[in-house]
Amino acid sequence: MINVAIIGATGYAGAELARILMNHPEAEVVSYGSKSYEGQDFSSVYGNFRGMADVPCENPDLSVLSKKADVIFTATPQGYLAGCLTEDILKNCCVIDLSADYRLKDVDVYEQWYKLEHKSPKLISDAVYGLCELHRKETVGKRLVANPGCYTTCSILTAYPLVKAGYIENQSLIIDAKSGTSGAGRGAKTPNLFCEVNESMKAYGVASHRHTPEIEQELSQAAGEEILINFTPHLVPMHRGILVTEYADLKQVTYADGHMDYPNKEMIQKAYEDAYKDEYFIRLLPDGMPPETKWVEGSNFVDISYVVDQRTHRVIMMGALDNLVKGAAGQAVQNMNILFGLPENTGLQMVPLFP
Amino acid sequence: MINVAIIGATGYAGAELARILMNHPEAEVVSYGSKSYEGQDFSSVYGNFRGMADVPCENPDLSVLSKKADVIFTATPQGYLAGCLTEDILKNCCVIDLSADYRLKDVDVYEQWYKLEHKSPKLISDAVYGLCELHRKETVGKRLVANPGCYTTCSILTAYPLVKAGYIENQSLIIDAKSGTSGAGRGAKTPNLFCEVNESMKAYGVASHRHTPEIEQELSQAAGEEILINFTPHLVPMHRGILVTEYADLKQVTYADGHMDYPNKEMIQKAYEDAYKDEYFIRLLPDGMPPETKWVEGSNFVDISYVVDQRTHRVIMMGALDNLVKGAAGQAVQNMNILFGLPENTGLQMVPLFP
Amino acid sequence: MINVAIIGATGYAGAELARILMNHPEAEVVSYGSKSYEGQDFSSVYGNFRGMADVPCENPDLSVLSKKADVIFTATPQGYLAGCLTEDILKNCCVIDLSADYRLKDVDVYEQWYKLEHKSPKLISDAVYGLCELHRKETVGKRLVANPGCYTTCSILTAYPLVKAGYIENQSLIIDAKSGTSGAGRGAKTPNLFCEVNESMKAYGVASHRHTPEIEQELSQAAGEEILINFTPHLVPMHRGILVTEYADLKQVTYADGHMDYPNKEMIQKAYEDAYKDEYFIRLLPDGMPPETKWVEGSNFVDISYVVDQRTHRVIMMGALDNLVKGAAGQAVQNMNILFGLPENTGLQMVPLFP
Amino acid sequence: MINVAIIGATGYAGAELARILMNHPEAEVVSYGSKSYEGQDFSSVYGNFRGMADVPCENPDLSVLSKKADVIFTATPQGYLAGCLTEDILKNCCVIDLSADYRLKDVDVYEQWYKLEHKSPKLISDAVYGLCELHRKETVGKRLVANPGCYTTCSILTAYPLVKAGYIENQSLIIDAKSGTSGAGRGAKTPNLFCEVNESMKAYGVASHRHTPEIEQELSQAAGEEILINFTPHLVPMHRGILVTEYADLKQVTYADGHMDYPNKEMIQKAYEDAYKDEYFIRLLPDGMPPETKWVEGSNFVDISYVVDQRTHRVIMMGALDNLVKGAAGQAVQNMNILFGLPENTGLQMVPLFP
Repeated sequence: MINVAIIGATGYAGAELARILMNHPEAEVVSYGSKSYEGQDFSSVYGNFRGMADVPCENPDLSVLSKKADVIFTATPQGYLAGCLTEDILKNCCVIDLSADYRLKDVDVYEQWYKLEHKSPKLISDAVYGLCELHRKETVGKRLVANPGCYTTCSILTAYPLVKAGYIENQSLIIDAKSGTSGAGRGAKTPNLFCEVNESMKAYGVASHRHTPEIEQELSQAAGEEILINFTPHLVPMHRGILVTEYADLKQVTYADGHMDYPNKEMIQKAYEDAYKDEYFIRLLPDGMPPETKWVEGSNFVDISYVVDQRTHRVIMMGALDNLVKGAAGQAVQNMNILFGLPENTGLQMVPLFP
Repeated sequence: MINVAIIGATGYAGAELARILMNHPEAEVVSYGSKSYEGQDFSSVYGNFRGMADVPCENPDLSVLSKKADVIFTATPQGYLAGCLTEDILKNCCVIDLSADYRLKDVDVYEQWYKLEHKSPKLISDAVYGLCELHRKETVGKRLVANPGCYTTCSILTAYPLVKAGYIENQSLIIDAKSGTSGAGRGAKTPNLFCEVNESMKAYGVASHRHTPEIEQELSQAAGEEILINFTPHLVPMHRGILVTEYADLKQVTYADGHMDYPNKEMIQKAYEDAYKDEYFIRLLPDGMPPETKWVEGSNFVDISYVVDQRTHRVIMMGALDNLVKGAAGQAVQNMNILFGLPENTGLQMVPLFP
Repeated sequence: MINVAIIGATGYAGAELARILMNHPEAEVVSYGSKSYEGQDFSSVYGNFRGMADVPCENPDLSVLSKKADVIFTATPQGYLAGCLTEDILKNCCVIDLSADYRLKDVDVYEQWYKLEHKSPKLISDAVYGLCELHRKETVGKRLVANPGCYTTCSILTAYPLVKAGYIENQSLIIDAKSGTSGAGRGAKTPNLFCEVNESMKAYGVASHRHTPEIEQELSQAAGEEILINFTPHLVPMHRGILVTEYADLKQVTYADGHMDYPNKEMIQKAYEDAYKDEYFIRLLPDGMPPETKWVEGSNFVDISYVVDQRTHRVIMMGALDNLVKGAAGQAVQNMNILFGLPENTGLQMVPLFP
Repeated sequence: MINVAIIGATGYAGAELARILMNHPEAEVVSYGSKSYEGQDFSSVYGNFRGMADVPCENPDLSVLSKKADVIFTATPQGYLAGCLTEDILKNCCVIDLSADYRLKDVDVYEQWYKLEHKSPKLISDAVYGLCELHRKETVGKRLVANPGCYTTCSILTAYPLVKAGYIENQSLIIDAKSGTSGAGRGAKTPNLFCEVNESMKAYGVASHRHTPEIEQELSQAAGEEILINFTPHLVPMHRGILVTEYADLKQVTYADGHMDYPNKEMIQKAYEDAYKDEYFIRLLPDGMPPETKWVEGSNFVDISYVVDQRTHRVIMMGALDNLVKGAAGQAVQNMNILFGLPENTGLQMVPLFP
């Protein structure tokens, strides 16, 4: 049995970790960490856990926890983990970080987008970027996992096969993303009130959202060249779910007979299948069927499809996932499974909840 | 492994059965029955099952299915099962019926409220009313379970302890119930469109809803006298969840020292605890905390609490459950567990999904 | 032209006043009062007013405003107006108060339910309880109007005709009320976040909600005897709208031929028509059609209907209104129209917005 | 007083016309046309009109209506008007068509995208494309107005100033649009049920939506060259509102001193102001503030803003409107005002409804 501590258990992502781990056959939560709710029962903060987690939240101490837990999940504000993580702690236990502290390999990029000084930059190279479908091999044996952001996971996985295959003009990539409101967290802010969010929609963080450099880092690596993208997140009146709609110009390629042309439908389909046909959590949808967030809610699945526009020679790629599961807690557990040598989908085979 | 057939698998309750059974360690669905979607993959009708149930729906034949399944769930329109069930079928397999066909012991009451002739009235006495917390003992060894309605389960369980204890004026009981829209089914009807349901609320079936006689039957049995109630269902703009608010006049009782008075708080609390303290699926909430449907969504739990009003000598009893789980598919699986000698919560220990 | 000042303009009720007054042909807002947003443009706080109210909010001073305004609306926290209102101010201008400060005639009842000392109890008798359909005659010539609460308006108007007619057992009255979330205000509180409110429903303030004594005061006056009720408010995931479902035992009356019996359908219908047939804002629905909040949204209408249950000899009365309009700002403007001798529906003839 | 007939009054757009016209000081509805609801009171189909439009719907006959109405609004399925409109009818009265029948100047394009034969192609040249801010001068004196689509109005108005100014690479324009569900109409279809739409989001009509050629027609005209775009509509769980997010590469221009560079912020701002500073219904938002659909709900406003991304040399343009008002009925009334020589905002000055 893997002993797990959650720091930041009373945020939405932390609570989702608790939900998933409750039914994980090989893991057990030994500490629900929360500074704000110290001493209060976890189930009094999240009533869904009544009868299942009637234990008090603890004020977390990373160092102490590292001695009693096999793995610590940190679902904490940016900068928290970077400010207290040490190599000694990593000797005691694994850390899977749901914040952005170790995601960006270039510390300057981190400091520029997050407006924060990074307190432990030398640990960055110890961390693996935990987008499992791309980096599972590097993850084996690691002690520190930088679990990707919600928008990031969806954005990268949707475009990755065509970037990798060289079928699109990389600099033309535009990502229009839409997210449910749980992504904004449980903080009491007027813009997140029911009456402000419901029956409305808006963009935010236009040309400045912090997930942008993560997406660029990973797609650049896949492309073998530096990619700059436009990424625009939107807030949608629903709880869970991220939908991305990505636009890219197709790039002419040399066919077997020597002529140049845009990649045809079969080639694009093959690129997706080559990348994902053995992936349990990625579901390539039938020809032209757009993904819907309702079909992934509560699960670790990512649904992906695409449409080729013959008029404009563009491809429209679409992906959907649950921001709290594959976009946060589910992927974190998937990383834990990799670290501890379990099948990746252990404890993650729940059917999406509908309606 | 229990072989399961679902008839009516493509309704919301049928699909919820499929969802729950997918993670049940001792059961396996061998047939997804659907007349309307015969030949189409179940996962093409419910995209959440993509990759998990890519098998065609079958036009169900109860008699044929009874030979290959150990248990058949019927999530079918009123009158369907009564029209085709026979004793021979029940010799082959168990049937758990999510319709109302065998719930009412008095066939006249059935025919009056449902405006239908009952085609197999002599089978009614073979059926157990499958409200597990009240009738589990009678369920053991049965072949036919009449799984209760969603409003019914919530309404009965919320009032049962005080009715049983004789603490309320039985004829004063008023049940004001509120339901999410999945209770209205997946049929394409204008009143159930998003733009008609959302941002609105209404009562319906006032003084005439078909779940009324079920509630009266069971509470009358608990009370030892015939009870008539007022039951008013309301449609609420949410997917899942039933909330009942029940009002009753307290009845003066004789205290140990011989004086007459209304039952005090301790007595009422004790009545609830006596009834439910060992029930896994019933969660009595802390003093005065009203239940919220969000804390039970996706789970088989029922959350119950009450407030005593000293000004009016009434008790306000409140209960919440998920209409598709404890109000339909979850309780049906709970009944299956009882029939097959499994722990009642097998496959039903999912944490409610929030947010 | 009536010069209007709004104090508390940046709450939901204050902003709704601004919306209604913008299209009122005889009134003009001369001051948007808001302590929190002093100096900021009103339209920067409520973007719907961009281009229509690009004027700065002012820190309100009741005394100063009373000299430049003909009427002041106070949409302020309980206790504010009672703490600063004087007879001199009332000599200068009329005040229509959307808080509860002058609604309850018995100051002890106010202090008990609101846990506040009343700072100007002698002004209470100067105030008229501004439920227009019941008190319009008394309102003429008044300087201070206590505008009723949202739940209150709906609860009273729905039951009033039958209470007045003596057709129900007054002590049996039970009011189960459901409200959209705008009733909770614009304050940044975790329980009012989108992810907490949406897809859920709950009761609150059970047996203790502050609107209870208002309802009792008015219905007692109509009945000519003191009435105690049960009132249970619920929070519903929608913006606007209050729906009340009220239950009462019918009371036997003496018919013309001398026999005693419950009032029949015609008598009940006549009681409603006698009370409301000339009321512009009250719409009696066709026989048995339950009101829906969507049909009144954004308007000053109240939709009312009832069902008689012959089995239980109860009547179920139902009413729906928009909590921000007839439940707050609309009724306040209706009161202003009365005070200034205008037709009551001046500026209030907007069609409800649907969908 | 202008006598108005509405054909298709019982669809959402038709009912919105009725709502707006009810408060229009110079117009009166003389016929609510509806084949499906012939003989039923309009207010029984749309309960919000109870007491305001208790008149029966009529089976519409265009020819007959043309003799008693000054203007006929057709909110009818594609092909209906083209099948029955004649020059004689247009001699009798004006027609404002909310369908697509006369929007596309090239009948081949119409037939290709709508898969319909156009029955009266020679009337196309008589019609003005009624996007008021672009074509009001041509509209004066016309008898037939092709009222633009909802997506179209928002998409064109948002991009128009920069297309016109020559500041973007026209072929790079990508429009990602999001719409509330009222755009899908009141037809009883399973995909539009509350439980299917709510808590989900999806794209549809990818690379094939019928509003595409309308957008291309108008922007091509503004640009003076043929433009092909990508347009992707999405369904959002809200009633009303369209939000567009548009992406385009900036185009280098020659500055006064002769150097080439991307247009700077001031130039872009000036292009928007030149186009819209005198437009009552277009609200240019403060620097960088993204539009939100909630601020335009129920009104004829369009809120527009943009962000320049210095990293990618793209501009992200954003617009929001209410699909049933500026996207349908409101703009139709705006066109009526133009046709009849009234100020354009007559009857259209309602404040957006919030929350």
